[in-house]
Amino acid sequence: MKPILFLLFNLIIITHSYGQGENKQMVRLAKLVIDSTQLEIYNTYLKEEIETSIKKEPGVLTLYAIAEKARPTHITILEIYATPEAYRSHIKTPHFLKYKNGTKEMVKSLELIEGIPLLPAMKIY
Amino acid sequence: MKPILFLLFNLIIITHSYGQGENKQMVRLAKLVIDSTQLEIYNTYLKEEIETSIKKEPGVLTLYAIAEKARPTHITILEIYATPEAYRSHIKTPHFLKYKNGTKEMVKSLELIEGIPLLPAMKIY
Repeated sequence: MKPILFLLFNLIIITHSYGQGENKQMVRLAKLVIDSTQLEIYNTYLKEEIETSIKKEPGVLTLYAIAEKARPTHITILEIYATPEAYRSHIKTPHFLKYKNGTKEMVKSLELIEGIPLLPAMKIY
Repeated sequence: MKPILFLLFNLIIITHSYGQGENKQMVRLAKLVIDSTQLEIYNTYLKEEIETSIKKEPGVLTLYAIAEKARPTHITILEIYATPEAYRSHIKTPHFLKYKNGTKEMVKSLELIEGIPLLPAMKIY
């Protein structure tokens, strides 16, 4: 192989690997069931926690929370963090701890499901 | 009440109602289980369907698909449409029908859950 072709070939390999390595997103679904007698106050806590996280933490890419129409106590949150480090730093913030400790007695169950996005660049348009 | 105050008061009421009436989003979680022997081809169909919908349909605000890390055959899609009309028009498009008919034999189960977003203006940043 001519040296110039060899160089080009290596450049393609490196660029390709880098492109793949670049996406370090952590994507998760949190599924919660909330005590129905405390749902309103729980939602207030969650709303405040989400708004503060999005405002103060650039590494929190979304916290999209949905209540089921038929069972509003059943909540799913799509969580996207830029990196695992962004997630680890998120759970140490005062606003997260306020939510976590404040809602402890309201959450009847919590399931965390690690996910792989089909299209990591997907947005909400 | 002075006429100017009355006018201002009405303006606030109208603006407020309009703001609330404006959000006609339809938000849904689709939960699918795919035949493991056909998962790769299913994902190819889904990817193409999503990319085309986002490109061609301004009323499709997101189709965020996630596979569970521990069970990649278990897929959840967060679907956000600008209006119920945008959804109804979406399911008549050739790209949706290609996906729907092409994957019929690959989908072992499909659950559609209508949802209410906690913060309808939430994005993926």
